[in-house]
Amino acid sequence: MSTTVSPLAPKHVPDMPEVAGVRIATGSAGIKYKGRTDVLLALFDKGTTVAGVTTRSKCPSAPVEWCREKLKGGKARALVVNSGNANAFTGKTGRAATAFTAKLASAAAGCKPAEVFLASTGVIGEPLPAEKFDGVLGGLVEKAVPGRFLDAAKAIMTTDTFPKVATAYAKLGKATVTICGIAKGAGMIAPDMATMLSFVFTDAPISASALQAIVAGSVVDTFNAVTIDGDTSTSDTLLAFATGAAAGAPKITSAGDPQLKAFSAAFKAVLANLSEQIARDGEGARKLVEIIVEGAVSDRSARRIAMSIANSPLVKTAIAGEDANWGRVVMAVGKAGEPADRDKLSIWFGGIRVAHKGARDPAYNEAKVSAQMKKQEIFLKVALGLGKGRDRVLTCDLTKEYVAINGDYRS
Amino acid sequence: MSTTVSPLAPKHVPDMPEVAGVRIATGSAGIKYKGRTDVLLALFDKGTTVAGVTTRSKCPSAPVEWCREKLKGGKARALVVNSGNANAFTGKTGRAATAFTAKLASAAAGCKPAEVFLASTGVIGEPLPAEKFDGVLGGLVEKAVPGRFLDAAKAIMTTDTFPKVATAYAKLGKATVTICGIAKGAGMIAPDMATMLSFVFTDAPISASALQAIVAGSVVDTFNAVTIDGDTSTSDTLLAFATGAAAGAPKITSAGDPQLKAFSAAFKAVLANLSEQIARDGEGARKLVEIIVEGAVSDRSARRIAMSIANSPLVKTAIAGEDANWGRVVMAVGKAGEPADRDKLSIWFGGIRVAHKGARDPAYNEAKVSAQMKKQEIFLKVALGLGKGRDRVLTCDLTKEYVAINGDYRS
Repeated sequence: MSTTVSPLAPKHVPDMPEVAGVRIATGSAGIKYKGRTDVLLALFDKGTTVAGVTTRSKCPSAPVEWCREKLKGGKARALVVNSGNANAFTGKTGRAATAFTAKLASAAAGCKPAEVFLASTGVIGEPLPAEKFDGVLGGLVEKAVPGRFLDAAKAIMTTDTFPKVATAYAKLGKATVTICGIAKGAGMIAPDMATMLSFVFTDAPISASALQAIVAGSVVDTFNAVTIDGDTSTSDTLLAFATGAAAGAPKITSAGDPQLKAFSAAFKAVLANLSEQIARDGEGARKLVEIIVEGAVSDRSARRIAMSIANSPLVKTAIAGEDANWGRVVMAVGKAGEPADRDKLSIWFGGIRVAHKGARDPAYNEAKVSAQMKKQEIFLKVALGLGKGRDRVLTCDLTKEYVAINGDYRS
Repeated sequence: MSTTVSPLAPKHVPDMPEVAGVRIATGSAGIKYKGRTDVLLALFDKGTTVAGVTTRSKCPSAPVEWCREKLKGGKARALVVNSGNANAFTGKTGRAATAFTAKLASAAAGCKPAEVFLASTGVIGEPLPAEKFDGVLGGLVEKAVPGRFLDAAKAIMTTDTFPKVATAYAKLGKATVTICGIAKGAGMIAPDMATMLSFVFTDAPISASALQAIVAGSVVDTFNAVTIDGDTSTSDTLLAFATGAAAGAPKITSAGDPQLKAFSAAFKAVLANLSEQIARDGEGARKLVEIIVEGAVSDRSARRIAMSIANSPLVKTAIAGEDANWGRVVMAVGKAGEPADRDKLSIWFGGIRVAHKGARDPAYNEAKVSAQMKKQEIFLKVALGLGKGRDRVLTCDLTKEYVAINGDYRS
């Protein structure tokens, strides 16, 4: 945890309501950090369903492999998350540590190990001392209470500068259901990498398969549309738990159920909120950057171009320097490998068109554009003029602090 | 041009011999810079063939489009290169500027405009004031002399900290032919981007089509195996000119001619030398990084994984911090999307194995590895254990100076 909060942190932290059927406790297992919580236990009532997505990395962490396997069962009674050690690239020891942790948690919570979900974030390549959970998890089961989502978000932070929580209500049939989500973002601990974890809890009664469809559909334009540095973690995990404890809500077994419309929208809004917070807490970030690409030959093509811009070190350093450097945006469009025609391209910074049809906009006014670039939130739009493909991604600028956070700790 | 030369600059600058049939002059057209040369003219004897490759950007500069078109003719009598303005994203004005420059040069040199090749590097989006070449090119034709390759390399520099030249001889039949190459590397001029230009001159008598095959075959593991920041320029251009003026050398019309073996090797060596110099002069570079990937399912797969490592901001900042952060290498392998098996993966830094079969190497010795990381040249090897695919790429570290060079000039 940094002592300096990102200047882009949300001004307002929402009051997080309880979610019926979810109890939470946090504690200190002393995995790595001193004087702070580093383990989160969430307990779920019987009948809770679970769905999730994990990193696309070909070298995933041991907890990611555990979750992928257990998600097939669709049932959850406990979630254990630790910070300080990612249990990644730890070989057989890592697999043993996940099995041991799940066994401890299942014994304490009175469920099967396969109903325990695990996530770890922090240093990689170091064996996770799972024996430190022994004794701790039992105590956490005792003290778990409803609510406490802000505490939960704090316990999973690494180099995050603020805890990330979001909540929404939705009508489901005649009942009102609650959705609460937490996340941790781009943090680094030597020798570690950015890791994204998010957990969403609801009392809606939704089957695992329907929930899976909602999760998969919601991440595309939320978590998967955020990039800090283009480096995909071995540990990225998003899990959603539905306890079904909301009184009077109809049981949903199909993602196509029309009753789900409001819930799906609210669920996606929670993910959008959390993922924006991750961009706002990118390592060294001083500016939040929203990139919209339109007029591409397809949405997929627009996504690739938007990501090419969002991951370009030259675009990101220019924004850090408050420079409306549209030439670098042209470069990033050109290198994406997607259909683009220089002579149809237009680019806007902060709503001001700076380039039009293959050349600098005739009305270009340096002072006006510079004023836009001094803002904390930078809005960058590219129109390709080829088709109807459109996409939006979020990123942050690339500052010397990013290099310092990720390179300086040995010097 | 920077006043501080990269610490990675070659200790020795070779004496550059003359190339029969090539005359060179440099001058000051005042495009942008003051008090330095900014225009290079090379003149070629009748019968000179030309081949080349250009950026894969979908938004290429006007000179790139000019060269692509004129390469079809395969004949060259003149090359005009300017620094200070890239003539990129300049629309119709840009196309008119290239045509005007070629017309001026052809009139001065007594050749067809289609035999004039053009390259520009520098600010983009600004119209190139090609009228400034008027009067200058005529004078350069008058003063053009054999040799002068170091002057030529200096005239095309932007934020390069040293001029890049390389030379080699090769036996062709019973004759000895000469190859001289120059390049400019990753430089930035507000509002600009990294641009790579290289020009290679030889007196070997080689047809345009055979030369094209040699160029295309040589760039794969030289210029295309170097990355500074993963940002592909709109202006990248490599041109090779063969005057055929070497006395007694046999005329080569096919790339498959066995007599070409020594020449092709020498040609590739010149490109390898120049491209390594580009990595040594990456913006803000303090360490040269050689990445070898072996045991991949194919060479292509190895290239993708090597580039994923070489372009990872987290790997590059770790190297800047002298941290043998193999966890980030695992991350970069994992995100490449290519076949990889964590439990078969081994990683070396500076010849020391730090990770083996999915876990930290049992013999890992922090002090020994740290000593390797303090060197100026970092050697990183990844063995995937899957097949025989192998590749090598060069890059540099990512330092605060990179961010400063590319972001600070407005603050």
